[in-house]
Amino acid sequence: MLTIIYMIAIVAEAMSGALAAGRRSMDVFGVAVIAFVTALGGGTIRDMVLGHFPVGWTQHPEYIYLVISAGLLTTLVAPYLHHLKRIFLALDAMGLVAFSLIGCNVALEMKYPIPVVIMSGMITGICGGVVRDVLCNQVPVVFRRELYAVVSLVVCGLFLGLGALGVQTNLNTAFCFVTGLTLRMLAIRYGWKLPTFSYRQHWE
Amino acid sequence: MLTIIYMIAIVAEAMSGALAAGRRSMDVFGVAVIAFVTALGGGTIRDMVLGHFPVGWTQHPEYIYLVISAGLLTTLVAPYLHHLKRIFLALDAMGLVAFSLIGCNVALEMKYPIPVVIMSGMITGICGGVVRDVLCNQVPVVFRRELYAVVSLVVCGLFLGLGALGVQTNLNTAFCFVTGLTLRMLAIRYGWKLPTFSYRQHWE
Amino acid sequence: MLTIIYMIAIVAEAMSGALAAGRRSMDVFGVAVIAFVTALGGGTIRDMVLGHFPVGWTQHPEYIYLVISAGLLTTLVAPYLHHLKRIFLALDAMGLVAFSLIGCNVALEMKYPIPVVIMSGMITGICGGVVRDVLCNQVPVVFRRELYAVVSLVVCGLFLGLGALGVQTNLNTAFCFVTGLTLRMLAIRYGWKLPTFSYRQHWE
Repeated sequence: MLTIIYMIAIVAEAMSGALAAGRRSMDVFGVAVIAFVTALGGGTIRDMVLGHFPVGWTQHPEYIYLVISAGLLTTLVAPYLHHLKRIFLALDAMGLVAFSLIGCNVALEMKYPIPVVIMSGMITGICGGVVRDVLCNQVPVVFRRELYAVVSLVVCGLFLGLGALGVQTNLNTAFCFVTGLTLRMLAIRYGWKLPTFSYRQHWE
Repeated sequence: MLTIIYMIAIVAEAMSGALAAGRRSMDVFGVAVIAFVTALGGGTIRDMVLGHFPVGWTQHPEYIYLVISAGLLTTLVAPYLHHLKRIFLALDAMGLVAFSLIGCNVALEMKYPIPVVIMSGMITGICGGVVRDVLCNQVPVVFRRELYAVVSLVVCGLFLGLGALGVQTNLNTAFCFVTGLTLRMLAIRYGWKLPTFSYRQHWE
Repeated sequence: MLTIIYMIAIVAEAMSGALAAGRRSMDVFGVAVIAFVTALGGGTIRDMVLGHFPVGWTQHPEYIYLVISAGLLTTLVAPYLHHLKRIFLALDAMGLVAFSLIGCNVALEMKYPIPVVIMSGMITGICGGVVRDVLCNQVPVVFRRELYAVVSLVVCGLFLGLGALGVQTNLNTAFCFVTGLTLRMLAIRYGWKLPTFSYRQHWE
């Protein structure tokens, strides 16, 4: 079940990467790379930080084909995508939540302490988009957008909390998934944002 | 002793990260992330490059809380920080020197060759700030600022040289710490800089 | 044989890094760092992703000296380099091809699946330049330039294909090297490019 959602999620992330590459007028190779790192970069960084080798996608080459195909296909369907904006944002939100839960599970299995488990979930959920934005030479939107990273944090915290209370894992996963998705969609719908910190002094 | 200095140092680095995030008007989540990577990113990259798992902070969750708290607190006290500019720069210099010495020790324990030990010290001292600047979409200041990286290099070289001469480790650490701190403060005071290389031709 | 080409290649890459640093008016330390990451960063990222520890250059400190020397020397000879543009581009192409073949071999020895072997070659060939451009705060040229990454892909694919057909490794290496070099030089000569994807809508 989470595997199917995961595959939908990496396709959605690959498409968001391809669109970002298109905004920088990259060639199709650049599109493929950005699609790849957006979809699989978060998990790669998580595995590298946790020392979790071999890195996930190296054992599932089919994911490589999937995200690169999705990225290249996006260059063809891009003109029509904005009609599908809502579906696209929903898929992206599913990805965020699914990635977060998967990231938590990887760190849990490696017996890392709780705060690291939460960070593992957030790294998996968020870092793909961060690397995408760095490669496209812009400040990562995730540091400025409506509730995005916070959704990941809430999902990870809830999942661990309910797990500690003894809730059965599949039920827990499903509940956290629905809660995270709902929170993210509400945040988009109502433009919920975290407070911003602006600092203008240059004294360094 | 080095642990206390280390904790002061990561707080100072987290604060410098939070200010950089504020200059990009990030939300509080972005502030927390930038504070985290500035303070602990150098050590993380060092551990990932050296294959030194588990990465340091994953075994010390208290550091995670410490740097994120320091980052968020900075958003509240920021308007008053420029009055404390000198203290802040001194703390930052302490961080640079302490990180460098810690980085050397990690690579020494892993029996890496001498040049790698020096690079390990420099990576630990400098990479946090490099990642901060990359995420804030600017050319890393460490590549252009008054003697900063060079202080790290001098400290690492001195530490290894005196160690090879048989100087006792605690004494050696203390001496290198004071020397590095003095050098950095003098560099700030007198604006010492490395020569710059400017190249204007675009023939590629 | 591949070792000599490799050393020529890392020198060429270090020089291209130094010139990029000069375009950002970095100090000599920044030049040394950018030279280092451009020359050795691709292999470092490959080793970190594949879990191939210790990372290559940590066991060959002579490479550290070589690339840093090449970078610093570049600051002296830079005014004359554009006369050598063709030689320089040829050395850079040799680097691309040699790095790609070396990257394939590392992943092959670790028994990774074929698509990962190809990605290992491409990561080794390309990522140094990507990190260089990220640290110099620009969109990586490799995502927009004439056939560059594609040469890496062709070389890796050809090397694996001929290897699967039973071609002897040294012959295979030599043939792929010449083919890749020729392809790259033709691409530069005739300005071959991949199609570009431009996307202007900002609906996210």
